[in-house]
Parts: sequence; C-alpha cells; structure tokens
Amino acid sequence: MDTGDREMGISSLVNGRLCAELSVADRGLQYGDGVFETIAVKDGLPQQWERHLRRLRRGCKRLGIKPPASKLLLKEVVSLCGQLGRAVAKIIVTRGQSGRGYRPPVAAEPTRIVVAYPWPRYPEGVYDDGIKVRVCKMRLSCNPVLAGIKHLNRLEQVLARGEWEDEYQEGLMLDSRNRVIEGTMSNVFVIKDDALHTPKLDQCGVEGVMRQRLLELAHQQNIPAAVTELALVDLKRADGVLFCNSLIGVWPVQELGGQSYKIPPLTRRIMDEFAGEFPYL
Amino acid sequence: MDTGDREMGISSLVNGRLCAELSVADRGLQYGDGVFETIAVKDGLPQQWERHLRRLRRGCKRLGIKPPASKLLLKEVVSLCGQLGRAVAKIIVTRGQSGRGYRPPVAAEPTRIVVAYPWPRYPEGVYDDGIKVRVCKMRLSCNPVLAGIKHLNRLEQVLARGEWEDEYQEGLMLDSRNRVIEGTMSNVFVIKDDALHTPKLDQCGVEGVMRQRLLELAHQQNIPAAVTELALVDLKRADGVLFCNSLIGVWPVQELGGQSYKIPPLTRRIMDEFAGEFPYL
Repeated sequence: MDTGDREMGISSLVNGRLCAELSVADRGLQYGDGVFETIAVKDGLPQQWERHLRRLRRGCKRLGIKPPASKLLLKEVVSLCGQLGRAVAKIIVTRGQSGRGYRPPVAAEPTRIVVAYPWPRYPEGVYDDGIKVRVCKMRLSCNPVLAGIKHLNRLEQVLARGEWEDEYQEGLMLDSRNRVIEGTMSNVFVIKDDALHTPKLDQCGVEGVMRQRLLELAHQQNIPAAVTELALVDLKRADGVLFCNSLIGVWPVQELGGQSYKIPPLTRRIMDEFAGEFPYL
Repeated sequence: MDTGDREMGISSLVNGRLCAELSVADRGLQYGDGVFETIAVKDGLPQQWERHLRRLRRGCKRLGIKPPASKLLLKEVVSLCGQLGRAVAKIIVTRGQSGRGYRPPVAAEPTRIVVAYPWPRYPEGVYDDGIKVRVCKMRLSCNPVLAGIKHLNRLEQVLARGEWEDEYQEGLMLDSRNRVIEGTMSNVFVIKDDALHTPKLDQCGVEGVMRQRLLELAHQQNIPAAVTELALVDLKRADGVLFCNSLIGVWPVQELGGQSYKIPPLTRRIMDEFAGEFPYL
C-alpha cells in the first residue's frame, strides 16, 4: 500500500514561498517541536477543513506555539492543491528557528509548511474484503500533555510501521499498560452487539478527524457508541473491527492478530454513510 | 544562562556541503526520525569523541538507521570547528528523505548535519555556589525502546524547559511513575554518605557521556556508586545533588525544589578531577 503513499511531495510552500527547503536551525528538525495535519483534497479543495484546523490550533495551544492565521493557511493549501483535483495536503507548523537549547524562544516566528502529495493508491479489495492487521510490538508511551494532538514526535509510529513490509495494511498499537489505542496511522473502532467502542485517548494516541466524525454520526443516528478502555481481549470477542482516517475513510478488518473477522452490517452501514465522499469505497 | 546558549549556528554542513538548509521531505523534520549529539570543542577538536560516536551509533542501530562513517564525521566536525577554538558541535543524523507515510524507506540515504555553535556563557557562580533547580511538572514518558539514546523526539524537554525563565539554571524531570530521571539537558547524581547514586535509564532519559565518565571515575577511585531507582524523597535526604553534561561538566546544586544543599566534599573532589578539562570550574 505504500507505493503510492511514499512518493515525494509534488510541491511545497515554506512560509508562503514556493520552496522545498527549510533552515537546519528550525526546531521542527531539532526537537520535533511542532504539529501537523494530513488532509484529503478533492476537486482542489481541502476536505473537513474546519476540523483539521481546529485540531491544529489545539495542538499549537498545547505546545505554546502561535497558530498561523486560518485564512492564510487555507489560501496556501488551495494555491498549492487547487489544480490537482485529488491530492493530499500536509501542513506542518513548527515553533520556528532558534539557537541551541530546549528553551522555547519567545521571539521565534512559527514556520508554516504546506506540501502537496499525490493521492495514495491503496491495495485492491481493502474496502470489500477488509484489511489484515498486525499487532505491533512497539508500544505507545503515556503522557497526557502530548496525548490527542498530532505533534511531530512520531518515532513510535515509525518504529511500529517498520515491523512489517506489505503483508499487512495496518498495525494495531497498544500502550505500555497493554491497552488498545490506535493504528499506526489511523484510529480503531470495535463493533460488538451493534454498538461502537473506541479507545480513550487521554494518555496517548491521536484524536483523528474521522474518529470524531464516526462518533458524531453514531450520536446523530442513535447508534450506541462508547469511548472507553479496551484490551486485546475485547477485540477477540468483537463482532468486527474497523480502522479509519481522513484519507482511507473506513477500512473494515478481515484479520487481526491471527483472528478472522466478518464485516458486520453496522460497519457496512457506516461505510455507506461516507460513500459519497470516499467513492473508492 | 540561555543568552549564549541560544545563538544561531555559526555555520553548518549538510551531507558534507556548506549549507544551512535541508529538504522539507527529510524525516528528521517530518517525524523526528533521527538522533543527535552535542559535543564540546576545545582547541578546534571535539572532546570525548569516541564516547559521543559510540552513543550516536547505538542510537542509529536502535532506530535502524545506517550510521555515517566515523572518519567522515570527524573530518566534517574538524573542518567546521577547527578554527573556532572553543565551540559546540552538534551532529544530527536522520533517516533521510521520503514521501508521506511512517514506513521507514529501505532506499533512503541518511542525512548528516553538523552545526557549529558559539561556546555558551553560563551564569557566574554556578560552579562556586551551585545552581538553583526547579522540579518540572512535565513528566518523561516510558518507552524502553527509546530510552537511553539521544533521539530527535524532544517535546518533553522543550515543554519542561518552557516552565521557567531565568530563575533556575536547570529543571529536574520525573517519569510518569514519579521516579527521578534527569535534568532537562543533563544527568543527575545524588551524594549520600560519600556515595553516588544516579537513576536507571532503562525506561526513559538519555545516557549522558558525562554521566558515564562519572561512573567510570567512581569505579577507578573506589567511590561507591549505584545506578538505581530514585524518588524525590531520596533527594530530600541527600547530602548533595549535582547535574552534569558534556558542556557544563559538573554543576553542584545550591537549591532544589525549595530545599537548600551544601556542596559536599565528594562533589568538590569530582569537580577537581575534571578541572583541567573544564577550566571555568
């Protein structure tokens, strides 16, 4: 699945300038001192813009970084992706440049980077037949200050994704206390008795935009949905499992940790809800 | 203390080229996917080179990054800092460039960055009178796979250092289970009954070059030294506390978490051992 996923960016803006480089003094490089968003672009427009923007601002606030003006960001995304039709826009906001030392500089101007990537090609059958999922050895560490936001400290995800080649389409990550948290690049939902269950993300994990939309859909349609602690045994007893993010939409699970799953009607119903938006469903 | 510390780099090499920029596609920026070293330069030569190199290679191995050839790195550090006399050399090694996606690319060539910084000016009196230390609110999260190495995921240190301005010279960090681990930019030793105690770093923290040298010195001179679990109460009962790293050498503590300390004879003895190397002692 990564062949399409792994292509270099098509073009990029750094602080509004068409440019593919940034200073080695940038704290994004030095310390991972920043946040990012990965956004689906359709017909040249970023999808779910307000939600992505909200999370970006929440992340900036948590780290004490001044968020970029939202109109400016939107303008830059559209100027970069407007002609591309289907694409992926990635936004990175760092604390900016500084000299050596962890101390966050008061005077630094945040760096904003927008990169356009080609739309990824996912393997055939993932929506019809479901995906195969590995249970990763790599664990997520717990820190409530960093939980939920999409910051640039992503070594745990990198090492987790390095555990397999192409034999799985996603990896499930647990935290240091064996709680189920998320996929390496997606959130996870468990379906049991026509109800949804998804992990609490107050200690680690990223609060995905698609996860939030699924919870809102459940609320609107009176589908029981719980945000709760989950263990691997809860997945073993489940009727079905799904992974979701803003690019893939919803991926049902065919196999996870050696166990086979059917795709329950509730998963199909949720996928149908988003079929207009993710027509490759 | 950060005024000197915070100046921008004097010059830098990126993959051997005199250059101050790097690609926005570099995984060092995208995910903090790399490691670094901060090295004291004296008379144009990097100090404790072999120890820094060993930790850099250990970090690369842990992350699955091909380490740069050691002779090449040394040549680059000397070419950049050789004329500077006293300076600081920072080496960053990232996994290199890739497209979108956490998956570590097989084909990527690691990026190596060497930056020269001016020697920092530390506040007067820190060696004679000792430093004031804050106990940070920000906690270190636990992940044995990332513990000990000096990787680029440093948001916890950044946020910890953001808790104060100039009223302290260092901040003590605990882990999520309240164990004492290290300073934001240094390692910590406790002195009690003429023995040294320093925290185990198998769950979090960075194994500092100066920490290792203090442990070896203790071994050579038959000073009792233990690598162990420590809690704040152990610091309260201590005769003295010290912080150390490759740039500051050894800083005795005058005050930590509101408690005053004397500087015990053992701390002075250790400082004297390194006086030739850190003449500003």
